[in-house]
Amino acid sequence: MKTIKLKKIIIKILKKYGFNNYNAKLIAEILIYAEFVNASSHGVSRLSMYCNRIKKKLIDPKGKIKIKNISNNISLIDSNNNIGFIGAYAGIKQSIAKAKKYGISLVAVKNSGHYGLSSYYIDKAVKSNLISFCFTNAPPAIAPYGAKKSLFGTNPIAFGAPIKNKPAFIFDSSMSKINRGKIRIAAKLGKKIPYGVALDKFGKITTDPKKALKGVQLPISDFKGSGLAWMVDILSGVLTGSAHGGSVKDPFDDFTGPQNIGHLFITFKANLFVKDFSKRILNNIKKVKKLPKIKGVREIMYPGQSKYQRYKKNKKKDINLPKKIYDELQNLLK
Amino acid sequence: MKTIKLKKIIIKILKKYGFNNYNAKLIAEILIYAEFVNASSHGVSRLSMYCNRIKKKLIDPKGKIKIKNISNNISLIDSNNNIGFIGAYAGIKQSIAKAKKYGISLVAVKNSGHYGLSSYYIDKAVKSNLISFCFTNAPPAIAPYGAKKSLFGTNPIAFGAPIKNKPAFIFDSSMSKINRGKIRIAAKLGKKIPYGVALDKFGKITTDPKKALKGVQLPISDFKGSGLAWMVDILSGVLTGSAHGGSVKDPFDDFTGPQNIGHLFITFKANLFVKDFSKRILNNIKKVKKLPKIKGVREIMYPGQSKYQRYKKNKKKDINLPKKIYDELQNLLK
Repeated sequence: MKTIKLKKIIIKILKKYGFNNYNAKLIAEILIYAEFVNASSHGVSRLSMYCNRIKKKLIDPKGKIKIKNISNNISLIDSNNNIGFIGAYAGIKQSIAKAKKYGISLVAVKNSGHYGLSSYYIDKAVKSNLISFCFTNAPPAIAPYGAKKSLFGTNPIAFGAPIKNKPAFIFDSSMSKINRGKIRIAAKLGKKIPYGVALDKFGKITTDPKKALKGVQLPISDFKGSGLAWMVDILSGVLTGSAHGGSVKDPFDDFTGPQNIGHLFITFKANLFVKDFSKRILNNIKKVKKLPKIKGVREIMYPGQSKYQRYKKNKKKDINLPKKIYDELQNLLK
Repeated sequence: MKTIKLKKIIIKILKKYGFNNYNAKLIAEILIYAEFVNASSHGVSRLSMYCNRIKKKLIDPKGKIKIKNISNNISLIDSNNNIGFIGAYAGIKQSIAKAKKYGISLVAVKNSGHYGLSSYYIDKAVKSNLISFCFTNAPPAIAPYGAKKSLFGTNPIAFGAPIKNKPAFIFDSSMSKINRGKIRIAAKLGKKIPYGVALDKFGKITTDPKKALKGVQLPISDFKGSGLAWMVDILSGVLTGSAHGGSVKDPFDDFTGPQNIGHLFITFKANLFVKDFSKRILNNIKKVKKLPKIKGVREIMYPGQSKYQRYKKNKKKDINLPKKIYDELQNLLK
């Protein structure tokens, strides 16, 4: 489907479900961004879930974004159960504006929901020559180190920095050894998953994707990844006044209340301490790229580089939606 | 040796090597803190290395700490090649003072050196009911993902948050799969290291610790740990105006110049967005601890918990120095 046509359909659906024109356009843009970077699990495939939660009054498309300034450069945004994209976008916009004016900003968002890819928001900051951290928590997926039940979300750490005349350095990664999407694909194809990345529901290591889906994903590097996922839960949930400690609801199958996810943005100017940050980071990356490579590696990629390449390539092409998703869109239009 | 006696000896040595009384006491305290938490690789065993670099004029014990305020709550500290502890301590002190006054602070330190354990500095912040990040780069130890030569340092990420009536949550971890110290011990004992944590000098995976010492350590979780170590190099080196991209010198065997390490501190109040952060985090931790455990695990520990237990236990006891280190101290006293 032509991107422009798909976007129109998404906007039409979102408006039908209660969003104003501005927000509908923004959400459509973020969903299509996920398609462009080949993260379709965070793209159009989620639209029916969002609409379902709106119908059940768990997402409020009219939820008013309230910004409370704690100080010059610290703000708390109450997203009032609006869809995650809207709260997070308000968050990064506020964080960018305050960082530009005061050098650094800290913006918390509460009463929010799943917001797609962190890198979308980080990208807005680096385009203003800012460095930015973005944290969000998520429904239980990862078992804390030592536990056999999941509690932390995939809890991504996202960090971005601008590079002179190049796509930005954008690290955006979950703290789990394997993505849930990859386990789902292995289950579909009847393949095994690697040893040591997931437990079955009894807490035993399994390579059977179906058993893993009923069990838990393990954090990267055991205690280290567990600690990082825990840190993200503290920053996004405990600090901001949002749900935490395993109480973020799964958007697909928990309809007992809104998700109440929290986000945190820390943004600051790249040139605070040096005149030429974006040149310095370019040199840094050049040094890494010049290193001798292990067999089979053609180029050492920096975080964000291949995502940008996918984005650029896919932007020119039509978006191929699976039939199931296409049908879902048709149903949502009815 | 009684701690009090050991401390006196260290202070005497440091003063002999040119530090004033205040700084000598501070450095001794930080070195002994490392012994208390069983991180003796960062403790008294490093004293002869520091003194050696002073003799070679690569560390300046009289180096003046210059604080430049970029704005109300953003500062750049030039450590003027003083020993890392002094620059980092000035950094966290400044970061704490500004965060208390303005809610959040950002403090960069340049022209610094190896500063021991990040958790020592984080501990100062959490005791003031602050949340703090602390980043530092280090000499090459980790190969970027795809490379067969090391470039990033062990580049720890350190993060702390206060907990009501409990030892703080302090995550402090290198981004390498195995610590260099552990490889050294395996080499001494003639034992193998685990498969997949290090490469030999030809870029092949090795379980031989001697070959690993000549080769490189691998980042945790491949691309993810590599990206995080890279992020730390950007924050500590590129941003602050310090050495980066593999140019931080090894303090033990590179005498061609000062290390010029950079540190970055981001500190903010825990109660900015909620009234009861330290109670909320206590509840968070209780929920994790209640999870069903995998076989063999008695208690799910939070980052910082066992380090605190070691600290508390060891603080009451004498410090047992290996004969080699004891002899080094005697030599330094001469």
